[in-house]
Amino acid sequence: MKIAIAPDSFKESMTAGEACATFAEGWLSQRSQDEFIFLPLADGGEGTTVAICNAVNGVIQHKKVRGPLDQEVNGFIGLWNNRHNAVIEIAAASGLDLLKRDERNPLLATSYGTGELIRYALDQGIKELVIGLGGSATNDGGAGLLQALGVQLLDKNDQQLPPGGIHLRDLARIDLSTLDPRIHDIHIQVASDVTNPLLGQNGASAVFGPQKGATPEQVVMLDQALERYVTVLEQTIGRQIRHLPGTGAAGGAGTALLSVLNAEFKAGIDLILDLMEFDRKISDCDLVVTGEGSLDYQSLMGKTPQGVLRRAVAANIPVIAVAGSITNNLEPLYDAGFTAVFGITQAVQTLEKAMQDGKTNMINCARNLARWWTLAHDTGKS
Amino acid sequence: MKIAIAPDSFKESMTAGEACATFAEGWLSQRSQDEFIFLPLADGGEGTTVAICNAVNGVIQHKKVRGPLDQEVNGFIGLWNNRHNAVIEIAAASGLDLLKRDERNPLLATSYGTGELIRYALDQGIKELVIGLGGSATNDGGAGLLQALGVQLLDKNDQQLPPGGIHLRDLARIDLSTLDPRIHDIHIQVASDVTNPLLGQNGASAVFGPQKGATPEQVVMLDQALERYVTVLEQTIGRQIRHLPGTGAAGGAGTALLSVLNAEFKAGIDLILDLMEFDRKISDCDLVVTGEGSLDYQSLMGKTPQGVLRRAVAANIPVIAVAGSITNNLEPLYDAGFTAVFGITQAVQTLEKAMQDGKTNMINCARNLARWWTLAHDTGKS
Repeated sequence: MKIAIAPDSFKESMTAGEACATFAEGWLSQRSQDEFIFLPLADGGEGTTVAICNAVNGVIQHKKVRGPLDQEVNGFIGLWNNRHNAVIEIAAASGLDLLKRDERNPLLATSYGTGELIRYALDQGIKELVIGLGGSATNDGGAGLLQALGVQLLDKNDQQLPPGGIHLRDLARIDLSTLDPRIHDIHIQVASDVTNPLLGQNGASAVFGPQKGATPEQVVMLDQALERYVTVLEQTIGRQIRHLPGTGAAGGAGTALLSVLNAEFKAGIDLILDLMEFDRKISDCDLVVTGEGSLDYQSLMGKTPQGVLRRAVAANIPVIAVAGSITNNLEPLYDAGFTAVFGITQAVQTLEKAMQDGKTNMINCARNLARWWTLAHDTGKS
Repeated sequence: MKIAIAPDSFKESMTAGEACATFAEGWLSQRSQDEFIFLPLADGGEGTTVAICNAVNGVIQHKKVRGPLDQEVNGFIGLWNNRHNAVIEIAAASGLDLLKRDERNPLLATSYGTGELIRYALDQGIKELVIGLGGSATNDGGAGLLQALGVQLLDKNDQQLPPGGIHLRDLARIDLSTLDPRIHDIHIQVASDVTNPLLGQNGASAVFGPQKGATPEQVVMLDQALERYVTVLEQTIGRQIRHLPGTGAAGGAGTALLSVLNAEFKAGIDLILDLMEFDRKISDCDLVVTGEGSLDYQSLMGKTPQGVLRRAVAANIPVIAVAGSITNNLEPLYDAGFTAVFGITQAVQTLEKAMQDGKTNMINCARNLARWWTLAHDTGKS
């Protein structure tokens, strides 16, 4: 029997790669005759670069760049196909997880470092670029990213704006003539599961600002600053963009990518599954196992488990999910196509303890499932 | 496929009968072609009377008796086989669960009501009696039980001792001549998984006193009172009994049962499984499912899951367990013979929430297991 294990990360408990190895360890301890293929995944957020490089035999290169609060961070990009292709995740240079909880500051956080990583990828001579938008600390509309690529965001005194979304309220003029011209020679795809517009109650500031540390008052200020930004941007490029789906992704960085960088938006998990030739790799498997930290009906809305589910169902391969916590409403998950959905936390535990014990819980879950499989498979056979 | 479901109760979350029905509901929702046999169990504690009556087509009769703190309680006994057989659980009249937490008082709690239930069973003309010792609120060495059956426990002024273990320190003389003579005409079996002696650091007061509300000082006082009691008792019957295994069961009620009532001690779960003809009932089953609230290596020490496991393994029928919480050390459970052991609490929950959601969690567990069974059973078959 051949099993594809294709989970997302279990948040702070296990990386996607660890989840693969741990499930297989438990299963193989009871059914050593079976074969595994590891397909650790990500949907555009943290782990996207590693997941893609793992699947396409890419290499990861590090580059010191500006972090979300202008501190130096150790950014990275993934390269493959003789440096024809590259992948960047916004979490690498501008991510929320680069900050301590009390350092979060969506007024000042900048996407500048992500722009530096794009420039670094251009230096490698790439032609195709994937950018994963997920887990950003920023609310700057991608303004920092654009500045790092040469764009000038000027106030009424023709001074460059300092880093941070709040300063966009002082924007008077955008000069695109100084944009790094190599941008026009590459094809950019954005991996994102966010379809929010830039502004308003479904916009970047209102929906994602609070988790980045914005108070209700700051949400209003940031939304107004982004409105100023997109107004000037629309005047500069000569078309309306503020209502496009995805402009609100990654603190509005979607706006810069969709307009100035002419990027193509794709559902994160599908883009990544295509890149890694997921369909071909699972084609001879008897079972696909996916999973993530917490599984509920939201997992069916563009997240990793849903992407894997769709591919497996299309290939007529049974698929189950394992998760740290599962919803107690299983019907939508069955209806969507999961054969079964198992929680690995099989005892009354605090969240902290469940995360600490993630690997033990995963091994035990896999062992029980393997033994139950063997029993069911062999029952009624002579 | 035919499945025997044979769990203990899930403590405050589900009775054993509810656990049977709930597991079957979940399983049958996915595999309606399967057949269930319900064998709700108990190991001598609360639920023993119902479990036995359910299995032997017995009837339950209620009788108002004295509760552990002399209040009136609605006690009950089970009768079957044309009133030849009866079962009484000490929890029915003298149980800890009859008291609120702040009412617990092992100094004064009495087993008198259990003696009244025995007398009531004698009134029915029974010849065989099973007494389940588990869940008692008492620490009186079975003194109240004996008094209810006519035994006189007298102080130095030839006055009857008042109820409660603490008063045994004033015991001067025991008069057995007034014991209900019908006791000598019946055979009494005691269902207990406790093998502790009456006194000392492994004795009734030290080991079980604290969970009944005894402070460390009270443990010492109660142990000294029980020593006085057993000393007088040994003088009265003319032999040493204090060191016999089981004399410490049910606050020392084992002492009275073993000596004055000449009862035979048996492992609770085995006695009950025999009574209900468990081996015959599972003989044509393809799978046995047991379970309890919390499953760990202690479940292998004379508790319900171990009893079921032994019978199923002997009959060469695969057996699994489901539990509210399972240990993360599965190896001893596999080694003992369980094919698999599943926790039904598949999410991070508080104990309170997990107990509230017990039925939903059980249904979901059974549904997932049924679906996984079908997949495994059908995989590789043309």
